[in-house]
Amino acid sequence: MRIFIDMDEVIADTYQQHINVHNQKYGTNFTKADCYGKEFWMCVAEKHQQEVRDHAYQKGFFKDIPVIGNAVEVIKELEAKHEVFIASAAMQFPNSLQEKSEWLDQHLPFITWKNRILCGHKHILKGDVLIDDRSYNLQHFEGRGIQFTSPHNVHTTDFERADDWNTIASLLL
Amino acid sequence: MRIFIDMDEVIADTYQQHINVHNQKYGTNFTKADCYGKEFWMCVAEKHQQEVRDHAYQKGFFKDIPVIGNAVEVIKELEAKHEVFIASAAMQFPNSLQEKSEWLDQHLPFITWKNRILCGHKHILKGDVLIDDRSYNLQHFEGRGIQFTSPHNVHTTDFERADDWNTIASLLL
Repeated sequence: MRIFIDMDEVIADTYQQHINVHNQKYGTNFTKADCYGKEFWMCVAEKHQQEVRDHAYQKGFFKDIPVIGNAVEVIKELEAKHEVFIASAAMQFPNSLQEKSEWLDQHLPFITWKNRILCGHKHILKGDVLIDDRSYNLQHFEGRGIQFTSPHNVHTTDFERADDWNTIASLLL
Repeated sequence: MRIFIDMDEVIADTYQQHINVHNQKYGTNFTKADCYGKEFWMCVAEKHQQEVRDHAYQKGFFKDIPVIGNAVEVIKELEAKHEVFIASAAMQFPNSLQEKSEWLDQHLPFITWKNRILCGHKHILKGDVLIDDRSYNLQHFEGRGIQFTSPHNVHTTDFERADDWNTIASLLL
């Protein structure tokens, strides 16, 4: 079975990184629970919204993002049984490309360069499973789409859902 | 029709760049005609072979590579009729990722980030046509594979072949 796994908000806690950067700069106390059903930029004061939207274009933003839960352990087990690829729609943020490659070197070195994909559209992927937080990626995928829960997608009911990596393990191992 | 186009040795003259870097440093006079059937590193003195193999890991190597023939004009025409993606197996060279993104911004700005793919294996691509110089990429592609001529592949007869971008135009326009 060929499985594609998204990076941001699936194995890397990018939503939390947005919150941390903003809280640190402005002394606010946002948590994910404040943001259900919204992108983080929609939660902050109007005058800061563009700044939050621009986080991902800044050098360094993707460098130290924390790993989500036990993603690394489960992906290692998936990789022993299946053909696993990491597929990130990173081409929108050219500054992030090398940082994302280095992040994977650090956290998932067992997924080698041959199984890493930085792309735009994901409907060009040919495989069996896509684990992704974004509905627009899942909608156009030919195989089984699993929506990984992120604050912005909690109200979506269009896809099979996984709240955490233990659920992924029970679905695919 | 969905068309994937490789970068190195298809739209970017990477083979010539290898030759230029080596000739400039060692005062040699290699041309492509000296290299038919070989990778460029196989053509140089044994003591320089590893250095040539390491070119692609060096910062700046991909920055100023010349465009091959009328690739830009033909891709612009293809893009008006078909769904066109650039797909480069760049993940092997993390230093190249941003340079390749900037090269595309410079030469093919009409192919936006949504239609750019930096990957390893190419058998994960779902589409109708792959234009590539490498036999191992063409072998595992589900659709029509067109081998773009490069010095290293001149003796291969396994695939439909295009020597230049006028041939691509006549095949796909």
